[in-house]
Amino acid sequence: MEEQLAMSIKVLVWGENVHERQNEVVRSIYPDGMHGTIARALAADGDIATETAVLQDPEHGLSEEVLARTDVLVWWGHKAHDAVEDEIVERVARRVWEGMGLILLHSAHFSKIFKRLMGTPCALSWREAGERERLWVVNPRHPIARGLPAYFELEHEEMYGEPFSVPEPLETVFISWFQGGEVFRSGLTYRRGAGNIFYFRPGHETYPTYHDATVGQVLRNAARWAHTPGPALAAIHKAPNVPADAAPEPIVERGPKLHKPGEEGYK
Amino acid sequence: MEEQLAMSIKVLVWGENVHERQNEVVRSIYPDGMHGTIARALAADGDIATETAVLQDPEHGLSEEVLARTDVLVWWGHKAHDAVEDEIVERVARRVWEGMGLILLHSAHFSKIFKRLMGTPCALSWREAGERERLWVVNPRHPIARGLPAYFELEHEEMYGEPFSVPEPLETVFISWFQGGEVFRSGLTYRRGAGNIFYFRPGHETYPTYHDATVGQVLRNAARWAHTPGPALAAIHKAPNVPADAAPEPIVERGPKLHKPGEEGYK
Amino acid sequence: MEEQLAMSIKVLVWGENVHERQNEVVRSIYPDGMHGTIARALAADGDIATETAVLQDPEHGLSEEVLARTDVLVWWGHKAHDAVEDEIVERVARRVWEGMGLILLHSAHFSKIFKRLMGTPCALSWREAGERERLWVVNPRHPIARGLPAYFELEHEEMYGEPFSVPEPLETVFISWFQGGEVFRSGLTYRRGAGNIFYFRPGHETYPTYHDATVGQVLRNAARWAHTPGPALAAIHKAPNVPADAAPEPIVERGPKLHKPGEEGYK
Amino acid sequence: MEEQLAMSIKVLVWGENVHERQNEVVRSIYPDGMHGTIARALAADGDIATETAVLQDPEHGLSEEVLARTDVLVWWGHKAHDAVEDEIVERVARRVWEGMGLILLHSAHFSKIFKRLMGTPCALSWREAGERERLWVVNPRHPIARGLPAYFELEHEEMYGEPFSVPEPLETVFISWFQGGEVFRSGLTYRRGAGNIFYFRPGHETYPTYHDATVGQVLRNAARWAHTPGPALAAIHKAPNVPADAAPEPIVERGPKLHKPGEEGYK
Repeated sequence: MEEQLAMSIKVLVWGENVHERQNEVVRSIYPDGMHGTIARALAADGDIATETAVLQDPEHGLSEEVLARTDVLVWWGHKAHDAVEDEIVERVARRVWEGMGLILLHSAHFSKIFKRLMGTPCALSWREAGERERLWVVNPRHPIARGLPAYFELEHEEMYGEPFSVPEPLETVFISWFQGGEVFRSGLTYRRGAGNIFYFRPGHETYPTYHDATVGQVLRNAARWAHTPGPALAAIHKAPNVPADAAPEPIVERGPKLHKPGEEGYK
Repeated sequence: MEEQLAMSIKVLVWGENVHERQNEVVRSIYPDGMHGTIARALAADGDIATETAVLQDPEHGLSEEVLARTDVLVWWGHKAHDAVEDEIVERVARRVWEGMGLILLHSAHFSKIFKRLMGTPCALSWREAGERERLWVVNPRHPIARGLPAYFELEHEEMYGEPFSVPEPLETVFISWFQGGEVFRSGLTYRRGAGNIFYFRPGHETYPTYHDATVGQVLRNAARWAHTPGPALAAIHKAPNVPADAAPEPIVERGPKLHKPGEEGYK
Repeated sequence: MEEQLAMSIKVLVWGENVHERQNEVVRSIYPDGMHGTIARALAADGDIATETAVLQDPEHGLSEEVLARTDVLVWWGHKAHDAVEDEIVERVARRVWEGMGLILLHSAHFSKIFKRLMGTPCALSWREAGERERLWVVNPRHPIARGLPAYFELEHEEMYGEPFSVPEPLETVFISWFQGGEVFRSGLTYRRGAGNIFYFRPGHETYPTYHDATVGQVLRNAARWAHTPGPALAAIHKAPNVPADAAPEPIVERGPKLHKPGEEGYK
Repeated sequence: MEEQLAMSIKVLVWGENVHERQNEVVRSIYPDGMHGTIARALAADGDIATETAVLQDPEHGLSEEVLARTDVLVWWGHKAHDAVEDEIVERVARRVWEGMGLILLHSAHFSKIFKRLMGTPCALSWREAGERERLWVVNPRHPIARGLPAYFELEHEEMYGEPFSVPEPLETVFISWFQGGEVFRSGLTYRRGAGNIFYFRPGHETYPTYHDATVGQVLRNAARWAHTPGPALAAIHKAPNVPADAAPEPIVERGPKLHKPGEEGYK
């Protein structure tokens, strides 16, 4: 049993937790918070151990200790992106580079952490009209699409339309069709440093998207895919000097030098 | 003649301009500054019109006006990365997303602007021993490799070694062999927004790398490749709402809503 | 004038030329053959010099001489993919690897040459119902999207649906929305050897797609993008032995050997 | 126990098995055949169940039944690529598209199956001089690099040099440094259809490479990475018609048609 827990994937679900408290519609759909519903969906198969954290927690619930024990971080935010401290965004980015997985949901396309890791505006067009979204699986045996049908529908969703200003992904897993005439790359994978990143589009707060069984399957698949076993890649933060006498092949130093022996490089 | 100028690619060469003034070796190799030598190499074929700017200029020589007329920005920096104002880094990033090309040289792997656009540490290992570097062309008809031999050598260079913590590139153009036993992906292409980005490894300040004819050819090829004709993609900074009555297909709004009519989205 | 011609991009438009002769509807839309209409669209700006060839020509109009002078080959086929000789498919593939551009149109997804170069089934789902297709530009400053609006529509088109079993592309330029509920990656770029490849979805033979002005713009943009200047990369067909005494660095042979001195490698 | 077996990854190691029987040096290093040594390395951790097959077996040991139960196929060939029947190459390609993993070793860069799946010449330069190869891990937490040091060395190897004429990979895992001055992308990943493909460079038959412990670790990592759980993606061989009355969204057929109701598409 303990071993079972030890082998679970540790997923931390982070929720902005603002709409759920301010908006009656959102509260009625997600009485335990969106993060609560998302965490329950992730835990459904028993191989994923979840915790939750919210914006309002000290350090937004993202202390060094918490992040150190997290395999995969799931992020939902919308109204309060700017309230997330820059220092903590940087801390999360460092953990991703070390190997922590990161799953960005819906309006998290504009979260500080996603923009930080993509290096692009991450913008898109949008419409809140409760229209039908149909997600097509374009990569049918990608681990994130495991067990899914050829497509699945969400009867009421917010529209996100292309162009989505993100870097070309490693692989595209889902593309959405919208009733109003737009399309969107709804499932995109990236690697940044040692960390796997997945952006998943659906999840507007006024619709019951995270109660959907297929969406739950996607979340669990994504958490398993994003998980990188093994120790944190701490070396990624270093730019080590390899002096001539430690070079893999014997060489003799020559020519003019800028750095004194043993000096650190500039950063 | 005016037409000729109007059709030239406008390249701005940015130099940190610190070592050239503080270090006798660097000054002797680059008496006009590294930016001066780089600009001369770029202009050699007559189809590229160059300007230069340095860290010490007002706004680092990177005012809105200057950037607006720049097709491709070439960046060399090393010792004073931190002295570049964050606000100006952000300004440059925005111009890249709008379509300005960006070429990062050597130690610019640790420049704020490269790290900003990559979203990764951009770290590597290094050794200043004046060893031989041999750059292999792994993509022989890529525009940046135009006219190059199968490989070219720089007899004295600083070593940069893998892993280079950058995102998987669009394409790899060069891979370097080092005498001391390391390898490095020395020519990497990216697109961020509408902007083409090229990282090119060689160019340690204590060696005459930018006087090398083949390196000059690479710089000119890269500038031509990075240039995106046409107007700035100003739309990339917007996340436009497309109301239901403006949808490409007729739809009827339904379901609960978070946003009031005409309200801006959260950013 | 001669210089002008010499500097034109030489595009060869290849047409299967079967439906135009057998089907009254297709003939009425394309009285000069689909290849004739496509060639006219390509030539509209004056910088592209076109020739045409059809399946029924000797060697399908794809002799060594013709291919040697072709910068970019445009391919439309549907009913008679199997009638294309394997030897000629191989000849075209070799020219692509040497640097000839290749643009595959619509049902050419199942052409021998596209399947040969992709190494995958290149399958998709389809429906011939004259429905509306809307192509979204997802990569707004890609050279192939130059001058295009945010999206363009074809009122009557055949539907192609995902999953499209092709390799992950270098870049995705267009994604299509279909009235019947499907999506499709309608503009995909690849490089194979020195050759640039572009797949463009629209163009069912019973609709006037290649008379559309925006489609014409895409074709011209694609031809310019696919063109690789410079001599054919003949070296790509070789796997040269580099004997020890010709190695870039001095080395001494050692250890047991399989090959005798000067022996060719196995292929 | 049976469950354990049922959960093992089923790896089939295919060996050309020619040099081992004709060449005294190769026989002395690989008395059980290279396939035997490779299979033993794969089985070392107990989670991989191996079988072997050789060129000389009926159907080269690659019957429909054998392939149907194979999760990952490992391929070593060199002298007798042409002796592999085209029909069987096609059969293997189909299984890869359906989800079977494929690992190509060393001289298998010129195997029919690799060239078939890449769509490129897959050529390179080479030298048989027993020189030192040093493989650098450029993607330190990729599953295939799990547990590896920053680099590892093979004291005696054949040199393979760039340009390696393969498509741009999904990810680059290893880059090799050679004593004689060349570099090579020695670990490359691809997806073709549902199948994961890994090319791994080392393994010249006159050296004991597959007895090396680190190489064994790479082989096991690669087999685990290449394994796609779940049923074969048989649908990838179909190009289904979706008639108007089966469209996800209600549409009305309109316009001229080429195909009669219920007719198959052209292939």
